[in-house]
Amino acid sequence: MSVITLTTDFGTQDWFAGTMKGVILGINPNARVVDLTHHIPAGDIRAGAIALAAAAAYFPEDTIHVAVVDPGVGSRRRAIAVKTRRFIFVGPDNGLLSFALMNEEVRTVRLLQNPKLFLREISHTFHGRDVFAPAAAHLSRGLGFRKIGPRANSYVQLGWPEPEIAGPGIQGRVVHIDRFGNAMTNIPRGLLHAGEDLEVQAGESSSMPLAPFYAAVPVGKPVAVVGSTGFLEIAIRGGAASATLGLQTGTTVRVLRRKSSS
Amino acid sequence: MSVITLTTDFGTQDWFAGTMKGVILGINPNARVVDLTHHIPAGDIRAGAIALAAAAAYFPEDTIHVAVVDPGVGSRRRAIAVKTRRFIFVGPDNGLLSFALMNEEVRTVRLLQNPKLFLREISHTFHGRDVFAPAAAHLSRGLGFRKIGPRANSYVQLGWPEPEIAGPGIQGRVVHIDRFGNAMTNIPRGLLHAGEDLEVQAGESSSMPLAPFYAAVPVGKPVAVVGSTGFLEIAIRGGAASATLGLQTGTTVRVLRRKSSS
Amino acid sequence: MSVITLTTDFGTQDWFAGTMKGVILGINPNARVVDLTHHIPAGDIRAGAIALAAAAAYFPEDTIHVAVVDPGVGSRRRAIAVKTRRFIFVGPDNGLLSFALMNEEVRTVRLLQNPKLFLREISHTFHGRDVFAPAAAHLSRGLGFRKIGPRANSYVQLGWPEPEIAGPGIQGRVVHIDRFGNAMTNIPRGLLHAGEDLEVQAGESSSMPLAPFYAAVPVGKPVAVVGSTGFLEIAIRGGAASATLGLQTGTTVRVLRRKSSS
Repeated sequence: MSVITLTTDFGTQDWFAGTMKGVILGINPNARVVDLTHHIPAGDIRAGAIALAAAAAYFPEDTIHVAVVDPGVGSRRRAIAVKTRRFIFVGPDNGLLSFALMNEEVRTVRLLQNPKLFLREISHTFHGRDVFAPAAAHLSRGLGFRKIGPRANSYVQLGWPEPEIAGPGIQGRVVHIDRFGNAMTNIPRGLLHAGEDLEVQAGESSSMPLAPFYAAVPVGKPVAVVGSTGFLEIAIRGGAASATLGLQTGTTVRVLRRKSSS
Repeated sequence: MSVITLTTDFGTQDWFAGTMKGVILGINPNARVVDLTHHIPAGDIRAGAIALAAAAAYFPEDTIHVAVVDPGVGSRRRAIAVKTRRFIFVGPDNGLLSFALMNEEVRTVRLLQNPKLFLREISHTFHGRDVFAPAAAHLSRGLGFRKIGPRANSYVQLGWPEPEIAGPGIQGRVVHIDRFGNAMTNIPRGLLHAGEDLEVQAGESSSMPLAPFYAAVPVGKPVAVVGSTGFLEIAIRGGAASATLGLQTGTTVRVLRRKSSS
Repeated sequence: MSVITLTTDFGTQDWFAGTMKGVILGINPNARVVDLTHHIPAGDIRAGAIALAAAAAYFPEDTIHVAVVDPGVGSRRRAIAVKTRRFIFVGPDNGLLSFALMNEEVRTVRLLQNPKLFLREISHTFHGRDVFAPAAAHLSRGLGFRKIGPRANSYVQLGWPEPEIAGPGIQGRVVHIDRFGNAMTNIPRGLLHAGEDLEVQAGESSSMPLAPFYAAVPVGKPVAVVGSTGFLEIAIRGGAASATLGLQTGTTVRVLRRKSSS
């Protein structure tokens, strides 16, 4: 078996994602193609990098993760394939792969430069179809990784915004708003010392408790939980925290020790 | 072959549905995963139950239907697997499975409690990934159903809103608005006696004919038809009945014998 | 292997597309079903025809392309299957298949009339599930093409809007707006003579350059490129041309030889 995942900003209203699958199945009829998401905001490399990093590790070993958020398509930006201990990542070298690679043991980086792996005619606007999909399909059939192209010494890495330990508390920020309006932050579970009585403040909210799950507070109330990616998350039970609390990517989030009410 | 369907409120803008597929393929590389829909309105258990009930029976025998609309995730709400004559259903025990189970011969209900079937680390916010997907994947590999956990005597059942036979007519209500703006009701085909001359009134519409298909009325006109799930449906040919007639879930729909125009 | 693609206006908020897959897998467990898109605007046959034509050729030989944008469902409109040198196309005979067929060598057209290929009970509103999906699944298992039904002498063809060569320039129009707000036109690459210094005017824009790729102009600037389907496309680098320039399907686009700036 060979699983290929797709993470793009192509949306699903057009034929773009489907066409990539046609190209893949033409080269490797046995490939299993899984959509991570095609709804990365158009051109938002950082959002794509977060999605890929959140999901990649849950796939079986030898999965090939293809990501295409590629505002520089057709220009001289590089395209790369990165072999890690467990996976292969394929995409433009614009930082899109870099958050996922922070979680993996990187073995080799190669430039996607072997034209035999691409479609014969390469458009200047859709390398997802013409370059990345066929290269991934060939890799999924067992093509030797070195046939991809020459080794590269590095790849573009986006800066991950580390939270600040600020005196008695932690200051972080929102890095993703999900479909429910929950706000994922950059504050990892490891900074939230168990046993401490913590409270969280974000956006227009007054402080909210850090609780084990959403339903620990009444419906309509804000709550902070450790979310499914291991980072602090701000939610409103049965509601959309982003809209109600005015949260968006970049909004400051503070974690404080709860004052004793004596 | 083993088909696993997914019905959730996770949307497709995030990586949630894709991650469930990664977990499934890691456990059973041969599983065929089919999305019923991930666009159940957030937390709307009843809408999820309707979608699952409308589609489940069209899948091949032994399909495993996984549904996750789970506002109580992480709390002490139960998780269940239900074996019926033809299928297995897996999901939270909050009523989500209950409309589909009305159409099936239920054999056994078990609590999902065997931790060997789950991911090692279980988040408090994403049991779709950590509990339901891996349990379904193990079942699709042929795991004995009793290994799921202890038997349960019952499961949560949502009340299905039965239409009322009111004197000379039938009074029902809208239970679902579809992508076209068509309004599915709770009035089953069996109540619409063939041969009778019926007319239908819904929302802000004056009465409309009961016709065999949409194109039986001119473009722009309202029409009632028996929809694809066997229930009366209100449509506007070439338009969106929900917007034009002010229909939404819960709106009253009346079926009357047509007055003779003498 | 047998690939079946789906192109519909069913959306993904309901269970319609998923149900088609259930029906297909019940008949052919080995079919590989690929979504081209389910987001064709409701009832927009022409938009569906463009999507299918843009993607079909990228699939492996023997792929069965099923398309369902079918406002006449349930009425006496015909349903057809078309065998071409490389593919089979299945859908309502309303023009939906016709742009894709312009790119293929058509061999035989048959009416879908063999009731053995359909579900036992056929609704009047959802032939995607009851007629087209099961027929395609049977074909994907190797059913002889003549068993579909009687030969037809013709099929409905939509008129493709050819651009006009108007004196010193070319006048075409927008035929599709994509997810990025890029506007695909009906002006093919072959009319854009290499070496000539061309400029393009569309909607509310002053003239813009014809460039090899989006990133050839500064962020925020309009640019014309040859898009991935081989037609001229209007874009704004890092933006949405449709909104900014007021482009929509039908908007006039002009290509002119650039005036020398002497």
